[in-house]
Amino acid sequence: MNITGLIEQIQPLDQAAMRAARGRQNQLTKPAGSLGRLEELSIQLAGIQRKPLPAIKDKAVIVMAGDHGVTAEGVSAYPQEVTPQMVLNFLAGGAAINALARHAGARVVVVDMGMTNEIDTSRFKRDLLIRRRVGAGTMNLAQGPAMRREQAEESIQSGIEVALTEISNGADILGTGDMGIGNTTPSAAIACALMKLPPEKIAGRGTGVDDDGLQRKISAIARGLAVNQPNADDGLDVLAKVGGFEIGGLAGVMIGAASKRAPVMVDGFISTAAAMIAVTLAPQCREYLIAAHRSKENGHALMLEWLGIKPLLDFDLRLGEGTGAALGISMAEAACKVLSEMATFSEAGVSQVVE
Amino acid sequence: MNITGLIEQIQPLDQAAMRAARGRQNQLTKPAGSLGRLEELSIQLAGIQRKPLPAIKDKAVIVMAGDHGVTAEGVSAYPQEVTPQMVLNFLAGGAAINALARHAGARVVVVDMGMTNEIDTSRFKRDLLIRRRVGAGTMNLAQGPAMRREQAEESIQSGIEVALTEISNGADILGTGDMGIGNTTPSAAIACALMKLPPEKIAGRGTGVDDDGLQRKISAIARGLAVNQPNADDGLDVLAKVGGFEIGGLAGVMIGAASKRAPVMVDGFISTAAAMIAVTLAPQCREYLIAAHRSKENGHALMLEWLGIKPLLDFDLRLGEGTGAALGISMAEAACKVLSEMATFSEAGVSQVVE
Repeated sequence: MNITGLIEQIQPLDQAAMRAARGRQNQLTKPAGSLGRLEELSIQLAGIQRKPLPAIKDKAVIVMAGDHGVTAEGVSAYPQEVTPQMVLNFLAGGAAINALARHAGARVVVVDMGMTNEIDTSRFKRDLLIRRRVGAGTMNLAQGPAMRREQAEESIQSGIEVALTEISNGADILGTGDMGIGNTTPSAAIACALMKLPPEKIAGRGTGVDDDGLQRKISAIARGLAVNQPNADDGLDVLAKVGGFEIGGLAGVMIGAASKRAPVMVDGFISTAAAMIAVTLAPQCREYLIAAHRSKENGHALMLEWLGIKPLLDFDLRLGEGTGAALGISMAEAACKVLSEMATFSEAGVSQVVE
Repeated sequence: MNITGLIEQIQPLDQAAMRAARGRQNQLTKPAGSLGRLEELSIQLAGIQRKPLPAIKDKAVIVMAGDHGVTAEGVSAYPQEVTPQMVLNFLAGGAAINALARHAGARVVVVDMGMTNEIDTSRFKRDLLIRRRVGAGTMNLAQGPAMRREQAEESIQSGIEVALTEISNGADILGTGDMGIGNTTPSAAIACALMKLPPEKIAGRGTGVDDDGLQRKISAIARGLAVNQPNADDGLDVLAKVGGFEIGGLAGVMIGAASKRAPVMVDGFISTAAAMIAVTLAPQCREYLIAAHRSKENGHALMLEWLGIKPLLDFDLRLGEGTGAALGISMAEAACKVLSEMATFSEAGVSQVVE
């Protein structure tokens, strides 16, 4: 299945299921609408899953890793070796995403989309790392295209395949997560390219660069946009010129999930940049996306507005890895449980509003 | 133990445990501070529990019910019979709080603090309703005091005892919840009395009154404040004159929990009014409170500001019952798990920031 064929399969949300869910919300023993965002979420999930009573039981957070040539510009507070070190930490279960995914009852699916070096996973009894390496890190986007167009296509194709595998394994919802030292820079560059905004409106401190680092980052993005001239109408062109392998992979996850009517809990800044690529390629996948949170990173709120999705949490998170998505998945599950487990007024013998 | 004696036992948060928790957060495999509110929460919980690694395993949401004479003024969209009907729904497990507490792994503790009529629970195999009836509903606060001062004291004493019992049963955290048709009116009146604001700044639509209902509510509160002249420096006086039995009970839960170094997840509008009474009586219990969410009800944001506590969620909830508290408890548990389960940089062999 090529990407275009799959995109054509994405259906709008099921209005009948959404009407049924809304109707039931109004019959449950509470004032209509009094559970706010949880009610809205349950109705969206009904439309996505095409079920009046959507269910979230099998949960997966897909964490995609990649390296970035633009780190040569001094855009990150951390050295590039941290990407593979953190991937090993994910596999060992010691990272924030592991703790939060366990809390949400979600499994963590770790994908090497193209770190600079292959990693040695021989110390693990079971090698759970999925290898979909598109390359050994991207090129420096400040000097030219981050990757070739075929690589952009491959990264999306790989993300689609990972999503389809998880869904066929039973996942009811996919969360997105990322790891890649320097990847707030390509993410900001994607947002600038698609929103036609200057880098200083979008770029932030990422994992914690100082003032000089932030200036280097803004300069790298500005040079990258000038040298590459990405075409905002062409998601693949933007991804290839200023993106990253894990960002393309996450965009693919979103497209793949939407094609199978599975909701996607979008994490923070990097995942939101991936969502912008996904929606540029496949506008109809937008309705399948749920924004887990508004991160502390500059520009994230603008990116969510551009997408037209409203974040659930506002926790000043700026870690990535899918940490916000894990928290959001738990909220989505809660929303489904309210809809399916609560008694109606007539079942419980509770009087309704005096008219 | 009298109330005053117990209040004197409330200690400030443990600074050494907080320093240890903050120190560990900075050693965990993530940029320092990158988990935002979750990190802050874990540090607060360390100080509350006096443990460098706080834990939330045994969780209880205490839902207190009471009736309100002020319903005679037409302040609610629902008839008063809904209070006992919903309490039966809680006991049967069919209400929103049941679904959300199950999701959070918390038990629901239902307390009759003074509904108009005693309820028949004979249909349940085990009668789990705790009866701490201070009276058969309050008097109409628009015409005179809602209760006698001794009743206000009794309601707080009862709340303290319920909290101490749950904590001795093993609870690591208590959530608060309420049920009482009409109880946004006394809650708004308490806030007006303590903040010295006119009712139109605080009163909202509660479970959904129309414009006329809202005007009746504002008028009832204004008359209540004028006829009763509550003394803002005396929490018991405010509670007695314009409060409610379940509100006093919840204030007692907060004081009792603080005396035993247990955190309290404060639900929405009614619980926040109770928190204002608790903090007026015992200012040092404020640090033990966590605001679960900012509700859709008018004035709630102002009340949280007055208390100086920042809400976790902004979900447009306006149901009460402890529904927001159940969601918040899950976040508090997540915060503890991040702190205790994550690997440190040295444990995981991950490089730190380039200085």
